[in-house]
Parts: sequence; C-alpha cells; structure tokens
Amino acid sequence: MVQTATQVLDWLGIVVFALTGALVASRKEMDVVGFAVLATVTGIGGGTVRDVLLDVPVFWVREPAYLITCVVVALVAFFTAHVPQSRYRYLLWLDAVGLALFAVAGTEKAMETGVGATVAMAMGVITATFGGIIRDLLGGEVPVILSREIYASAALAGAAAFVALGAIGVPREAAIAAGFVVGLLIRAAALRYGWSLPRYRSRPGLPHDPRR
Amino acid sequence: MVQTATQVLDWLGIVVFALTGALVASRKEMDVVGFAVLATVTGIGGGTVRDVLLDVPVFWVREPAYLITCVVVALVAFFTAHVPQSRYRYLLWLDAVGLALFAVAGTEKAMETGVGATVAMAMGVITATFGGIIRDLLGGEVPVILSREIYASAALAGAAAFVALGAIGVPREAAIAAGFVVGLLIRAAALRYGWSLPRYRSRPGLPHDPRR
Amino acid sequence: MVQTATQVLDWLGIVVFALTGALVASRKEMDVVGFAVLATVTGIGGGTVRDVLLDVPVFWVREPAYLITCVVVALVAFFTAHVPQSRYRYLLWLDAVGLALFAVAGTEKAMETGVGATVAMAMGVITATFGGIIRDLLGGEVPVILSREIYASAALAGAAAFVALGAIGVPREAAIAAGFVVGLLIRAAALRYGWSLPRYRSRPGLPHDPRR
Repeated sequence: MVQTATQVLDWLGIVVFALTGALVASRKEMDVVGFAVLATVTGIGGGTVRDVLLDVPVFWVREPAYLITCVVVALVAFFTAHVPQSRYRYLLWLDAVGLALFAVAGTEKAMETGVGATVAMAMGVITATFGGIIRDLLGGEVPVILSREIYASAALAGAAAFVALGAIGVPREAAIAAGFVVGLLIRAAALRYGWSLPRYRSRPGLPHDPRR
Repeated sequence: MVQTATQVLDWLGIVVFALTGALVASRKEMDVVGFAVLATVTGIGGGTVRDVLLDVPVFWVREPAYLITCVVVALVAFFTAHVPQSRYRYLLWLDAVGLALFAVAGTEKAMETGVGATVAMAMGVITATFGGIIRDLLGGEVPVILSREIYASAALAGAAAFVALGAIGVPREAAIAAGFVVGLLIRAAALRYGWSLPRYRSRPGLPHDPRR
Repeated sequence: MVQTATQVLDWLGIVVFALTGALVASRKEMDVVGFAVLATVTGIGGGTVRDVLLDVPVFWVREPAYLITCVVVALVAFFTAHVPQSRYRYLLWLDAVGLALFAVAGTEKAMETGVGATVAMAMGVITATFGGIIRDLLGGEVPVILSREIYASAALAGAAAFVALGAIGVPREAAIAAGFVVGLLIRAAALRYGWSLPRYRSRPGLPHDPRR
C-alpha cells in the first residue's frame, strides 16, 4: 500500500487533516456521521482536487483504506474529542502539520506526472489548502486560508524548498524532509508569534466605504 | 436514452432534485434564469461530482436532454411554485426522495466501473448529497446535510442495503428497489418523527467557550 | 502560445477576472499571497471547471504562463488598487468584460470537443460564471451571480449569439466578436440601467413566512 516516501507523507497528512475535520464536527456538536463526513472530506479533499486537475486516477477510488482510515479517525475523535483542553488550538496545530505534509506530497506527485516546477508548486499549495477550505465551508468556520497569519505562503515556501533542493541534486528523501520542515516552521512561527505579511491598506484619509 | 434501471433512478432523481433547486430559487425570489441555474446545478451536481471522481465521461455532456429537463422543471416551477401551501416542507420531502434515488443509482454506477463496495457506497452518498450541498451554498440556505435529523446516514443505509442484497444474490432490480425504500423510509422517519443520532457533547461542567 | 481567436479571448478573460479577484482581496485588506490566491482562482476557475467537465486536459496544467500571469496581475493590483476612486464599480465592469469573453471562449472550446450546441452553451455559461462564484465564496462577498440585475442571462445570450451566427455560416472570427459584443452590451445595460428579468413573487395576501 505504502511504497514511496510521498505515500508516507500522504497517509500522515490524511490522518491529521481528518482529525481537524473531526474537531470542527465536535465544535458544531454533530452526530457520528457528521464527524465521518467532515473528517473524510478534509482528509482526502486536497489530494482529490489535485488528482482531478492533473487528470490522474483519484487516489482513494481504487484503495478503500483511505476512506476507512478517515472514518476510524472520526470514530476515535467522536469519543475522545472532549479530552483536549483547547480543541481550537489543537485544530490549528494539526492543520499546520497537514499543510506542511501535503505541500511537499502534492508537489512531488505533480512532478511525477511530468508538469513543470511552477505548476507542481501550485498543486502542492492546492493539495495543502483545499481540504481545509472544504472543511471550513461545510462546517461554517471562517476559512483558515483567510487568516491574518501566514498560511498559504508557508505551503508555498515548503513546496519551493523541496523543488529547489531537488533541482540542485539533494537526494529526494532529504529534499522531502527539508520541504516539510520549512513549511511547518514558517506556519508554526506564524501561529506562535503572529507572523504575517504586510497587508493591503486603503488610501489613508479617505472615509471608510464598504462598497468601494 | 433510458436503458437500465439505474438510468430510470437517475432521471427521477434529477427531476426531483431540480425541483428542490427551483423551490430554493422561489424562496429567494430569483428571476427565471436563477431558477434554471439552481435547478440545473442541483439536478446534475451530485452525479457530476461522482463521474469526475470515477474518471468516466460526465453523464450530461453528451446528452443534452438532462440539461433541457432541468430547465423545463425550472420553468414549470417558476409559474406554479406559489401553489403549494408550504414550499419548505415540499423541498424537504422531494430532497428525501432524490436522496434515496441517487444513493442507489450512484452506488450502482460506481460498481459498474469496477470499484469496491466501500468506495461505491461512498460514491452513492456523494451522488445523493452534493447536489443539495451546491444548491444550499449557492442559494444561501443552511446546508441540509448539517441538519440535526438523520440525512447522510439514510443515503448510506440505502446504499449499504443495495450492496448487501446484491452480494447475497438478490436480483438487481429487487436490490435497487429495496435500497431505495430503505433510504427513503429512514429519511422520511427522520423528517416525520425527528429521528436523530446521538450528538457529540462537550464535557459537562466546563464553561462554554466558542473557540475551544 | 496563442494560436487561435479563442485563446486570445481566454487570455484577456483571465487577466480581467484575475483583476476582479485582486480587487476583492483589496476590499478584504489581504496580504500579497491572498491577492495572488484570489486572482488565480478567479482567473482560471471557470475554465478549469469547464475542462474537468469536458474531460480534456486542464488548460493551465501544461502551460505555467497562465499561473504566472495571474500572479503578476495580483502583484500590480497589490501596489495600485488604491488608485481607482471606486473599486467596487471597477470590479463589476471588469467582471462584465470577463463574463462576455469567457461565455464565447467557453462555448467554442466545448464545440471543438464535439459536444452539441445546448451543452456547449451551458459550458460557456459555466466558464463565464464559476470563476466569479469561487471568488465570491472564498472572499466572503455576496455572489454576483445572485445579483438582481441580469447576469448569467447575458452570458447565455452571448453564447447563443455565437452559436446561432456560426450555424448560419457567419465566419468564426465575426461570430466570436458578435457573441462577445452581445454578452457585454446586455450585461453593461443591466449595470447601467438596472435591467432585470421579472422575479418570482410569492402569492400576494399571504403573510410572510421565511420557512415556506
């Protein structure tokens, strides 16, 4: 089932993203099926969009273990999600780990299909962010991707580090690990220290007008 | 055009889901094009997602009759939607019929492409629920899939009944009919008697904190 | 890179839609990565949905210039979006140009794959509207497609004019230009004079009940 380093990242990413979906379900006090649905769409959503765009077979359609894993994660969370002291903080940190994992795994899978580095990095960012986007749309949360702290940029940095190291001849496993660490450190620093990029500001001195 | 029992289910499902889309359009007092758009995306949305995931040709791309049917349903509804005494109740019951129809039809189409039972049932649930999800997102309604009464579980039960009966040798048409009845009865009972599954509850004794 | 009249329309449509995405980002005071993400999904979203439904390779996956163009548009907007006096008005007019461009380009690309006229026009409407739908969902705006003025109908009229003129033997470039002008004039008139189609009205004399 697991044959490559990318698949290991994929499995880990699916488990942690499924867990974030289940945590959103617990915040909305859903029933167990709601847990399973949110955990599954979050766990497999990003990779599904990537595979459809690349026009390769969707990874979980021939391999039921992915779906079953998401449902098991949902069941475990349904009975234990009351344990952590702060579910929202857990959600953000797990989401950060999944983001860094999928940024590298998505980029690598795209490169294996022969697309160029720019598109491959875009696929990494898509894989890393779309599961969370679907989770937040369905669960009625404010999308994490619109958060004020660095988010998609961390995925992009991880993907770029992986591509750059591979291009200069670093062995694949080392490039994968480095890309993951870069993405996670940047997002973790954003969460821990509130790092953010400069934001667009309207012209000073103009009266506020929400329709402009 | 209609060659198999699944296609009969598909057509019926498309008509009733298109009607739910038109009812949402009437609740929002849209114009006739709004009716046509919401009816069409609701009628064909679930099957479209299923076909894209299975990587088979999308069913309505080579057969314009599906689109035309949705538009005709929208036109009829535009001029008659004021007739029923309670549009929202009609919407929920039609949605229940479409849910049960598509749960079985989606599962069968997936099995015909050779995927396993777990994935096929997931495809049934996706076919049954995604049209309504898109309808509710575009129409600004609270997604029915997040309703407190049993919903996705009814689709799953219908799909599972169809798969189980087929596996023990029940003829296909009988298994299809039974799966439809199981799904519809469960969702109907949920609507009629307020059936729901136990919901996740936060730890008692802790103060309410929306960010947890 | 650009070989056909459709590709010229595609490029122009991508640039103006990317700009509308960046304008939404500026209204939400996002950072530069938020600008790039919203510009890109808006610029390429409609054509991506079209290509996935038609089961042809997604147009930007083998051609990074599309992604790079969207990012450049986002960068330019990030540093100049404070210049226009009324960003929302610019957004609506650019959206109108993109709508008319993509309605024709989407219809033509669909016809090139051999689908019939009905489905091809539906693909034109999908190409013209889905980028804006994704932009408004992600950016938290009220979807323009639900606006009270004529919108999807303008795309449909442009697509229909293109198909009808082609069917009676008008040269392709002339039919493309005419379809674009028809779509743009109708949407422009709707914006300028508040044109709208008759809307569905609940039965008079009944008390207002939001659940009906």
